[in-house]
Amino acid sequence: MTHSQTVSILITGSEVLDGRITDTNSQYLIEQFKTVGIATHRVAKCADSIPDIMRSLSYLFDQSTVVIVSGGLGPTSDDLTREAISEFTDRKLILHGDVLALLQEHFRIRQREFDPSNCKQALFPDTAIAIPNSVGSARGFFLKLDVAGEPSRWLFAVPGVPAEMRAMVKETILPLLKRELGVNVSQHSQALRIFGLGESVIGSRIAAAELPASLNVAYRVAFPEVEVLIKGSSASEVAHGAALAKEAMAEYVYAETFDAGIEQVLHPLLTKRRLTISGAESCTGGLISSLLTNLAGSSKFFPGSVIAYDNKVKQSELGVKKKLLKDHGAVSAPVAQAMAEGAREKFGTDIAFSVTGIAGPDGATIKKPVGLFYVGYADKRGSAAYRFFLSSSRANIRRYAAWMALDVIRRHLLKLPILEHSAPTSSLK
Amino acid sequence: MTHSQTVSILITGSEVLDGRITDTNSQYLIEQFKTVGIATHRVAKCADSIPDIMRSLSYLFDQSTVVIVSGGLGPTSDDLTREAISEFTDRKLILHGDVLALLQEHFRIRQREFDPSNCKQALFPDTAIAIPNSVGSARGFFLKLDVAGEPSRWLFAVPGVPAEMRAMVKETILPLLKRELGVNVSQHSQALRIFGLGESVIGSRIAAAELPASLNVAYRVAFPEVEVLIKGSSASEVAHGAALAKEAMAEYVYAETFDAGIEQVLHPLLTKRRLTISGAESCTGGLISSLLTNLAGSSKFFPGSVIAYDNKVKQSELGVKKKLLKDHGAVSAPVAQAMAEGAREKFGTDIAFSVTGIAGPDGATIKKPVGLFYVGYADKRGSAAYRFFLSSSRANIRRYAAWMALDVIRRHLLKLPILEHSAPTSSLK
Repeated sequence: MTHSQTVSILITGSEVLDGRITDTNSQYLIEQFKTVGIATHRVAKCADSIPDIMRSLSYLFDQSTVVIVSGGLGPTSDDLTREAISEFTDRKLILHGDVLALLQEHFRIRQREFDPSNCKQALFPDTAIAIPNSVGSARGFFLKLDVAGEPSRWLFAVPGVPAEMRAMVKETILPLLKRELGVNVSQHSQALRIFGLGESVIGSRIAAAELPASLNVAYRVAFPEVEVLIKGSSASEVAHGAALAKEAMAEYVYAETFDAGIEQVLHPLLTKRRLTISGAESCTGGLISSLLTNLAGSSKFFPGSVIAYDNKVKQSELGVKKKLLKDHGAVSAPVAQAMAEGAREKFGTDIAFSVTGIAGPDGATIKKPVGLFYVGYADKRGSAAYRFFLSSSRANIRRYAAWMALDVIRRHLLKLPILEHSAPTSSLK
Repeated sequence: MTHSQTVSILITGSEVLDGRITDTNSQYLIEQFKTVGIATHRVAKCADSIPDIMRSLSYLFDQSTVVIVSGGLGPTSDDLTREAISEFTDRKLILHGDVLALLQEHFRIRQREFDPSNCKQALFPDTAIAIPNSVGSARGFFLKLDVAGEPSRWLFAVPGVPAEMRAMVKETILPLLKRELGVNVSQHSQALRIFGLGESVIGSRIAAAELPASLNVAYRVAFPEVEVLIKGSSASEVAHGAALAKEAMAEYVYAETFDAGIEQVLHPLLTKRRLTISGAESCTGGLISSLLTNLAGSSKFFPGSVIAYDNKVKQSELGVKKKLLKDHGAVSAPVAQAMAEGAREKFGTDIAFSVTGIAGPDGATIKKPVGLFYVGYADKRGSAAYRFFLSSSRANIRRYAAWMALDVIRRHLLKLPILEHSAPTSSLK
């Protein structure tokens, strides 16, 4: 039994152990090391304390040649990872003048005061090599520990801030380990991003699709989206499995890449056809517009929108008739349609969307429960409205409604069917 | 220093270490033990292997009196937790006839064949007590380990299936520990939420404030906010420490509760004074309006806003003069002021805010770099605009600008100073 080429992971920080934040770094690290063929042997989490970190390092190095520590590299007094590693490896902390100069420069450019406590961030154990940080100021570092007659051991220390940790892993650590450990990467994968089907429905459909047994299928839910990752050692088998899964989920698969949010799928759909879009948001309160402008270049197709939270604003800004509001209520198909039409006219865009709904917890009636919402859509051919329903929290209902509006736009642009939700209560027609 | 009354957690299973499933059990256990006053000391995850589980138990019992193991209690060959605990505690596995009878009954009722491999699930280390399972067939168990002259140690073993693990923790383990350990919930804490100061500046200020040494200070960054948590065993000492920290951070502390985002602080400030607010957003694209409507009841003070991404919309919807845009550019103090005034007039609110800036990565000029933005503010006394700057990614700049706009409103309502950022580049006046 050989234990070489396995990594063990240490997450430090009292905020992880006292329940304030959920550690997502260890899962990320497990997945990333796997992509270069390095299996995770153990994971440990301990407090920001020198003896605890040292004890954990000895537990983790027990059978792994690579250990990565995430957390405790900041400038404050509870950041003790560098001190613990210095003691564990019996290497003094040395000030790296070049890193200090870069840190000071980082602060100078940003016109921020360089507090002397930041000097700590330029201290590294003797013989350590600093790891650059493309998204923040803190450096990580690594040590190669040679033990006579045994394979070298590698100790990496990265920040706990997910974005900084991720950048260091992708840009420095994985390429280094790939080169140094000569790891064979034979893992292929295909991601499918899905909106509009629940995780259990997706699971059943994939089970029924009978993918090759050698493939591994993983599910990840980032509400309201679900990501399915199909992995295997043969590229053609993964492609075959992904095709079967795609067929089973049909147009609910909106993207086949790992990082694409549903709003990113709309960018090329709109720009290629030189279409412009505007909107009118009620219960989503600006969330859809904020998503549409997430990506650079959205000014090409998005001039603006109206947040019409109040019914008076729906009248004055979107031209929704008072009688329409009175006869049908603000949360209704005719009002959703009128809002979309009003936005399209105001901004002179090719397309306009609207959302009106009851995000709760207040505002519901017997006929209109919390979670009911309508998405309106208008283009040169006219307008339409679609009814949807989700029984959930205010935050989830708002998110779901925003994603649904983007999906209605996507389906219109791709000429795909739009399935309204059936009546949420028996009292609804 | 006492280490009693802490728990450490072991999650076993290769499916957790190879990335196939994300472990959620450890986070659940941390939160549940916290509710009865038991802090988590360490968490470890290892494979289903007898030596690995034994090595992990010794790592976890190092400083904890309670260890709980989740996983490896099923009937298959890779379920090795009972064997590992038997070796670790040097207690033989004994067949529990009553548990075996209940298992067989469980299968009989469900008309499932009782495979002999299931007998394994009635084996427990000598002196162990079985833990009932209200949602499945597998039993957990626990051992009380007495060491002369030291407090008793407790070892719990529960299944890895979340629903079964949760039922055992709630129904048996927490009530037992509450009774047996007589746990005092004597940990006090005070959170301070801060916007506008970097983590290193906050750390230095708190260090200079010389809080009582018995207090524990933890930092958490959720960009662009920082949370400081002050913990200790004495309520009055925590209050004293929090007061010192607050004084050191002055009005940068915007809330003293754990959950409040900066937008939630505005709700009572606006509703108590019966003030209404509207806005005009350019680079933030709806993010501020979306934050303001996060909480229920925002319709009391927020009628709506305009997302004016395009300059033409700034003119037509907010009455910004074409000459103003031409003379100063869209990203300028005069335009930010005019946008806020335009929104206030359009929606007839007491207050209006605006944001205009360069979120990047495109759109910068020598005089106006990526990350420059202006927040406008208008009320019955007139209007003002404030310049800010952040060198970061598009997503961070947008988030930071949204938070800054909410902070400008908060500072206006509380009559606090607003400090503009100095010129981001030397070419700026």
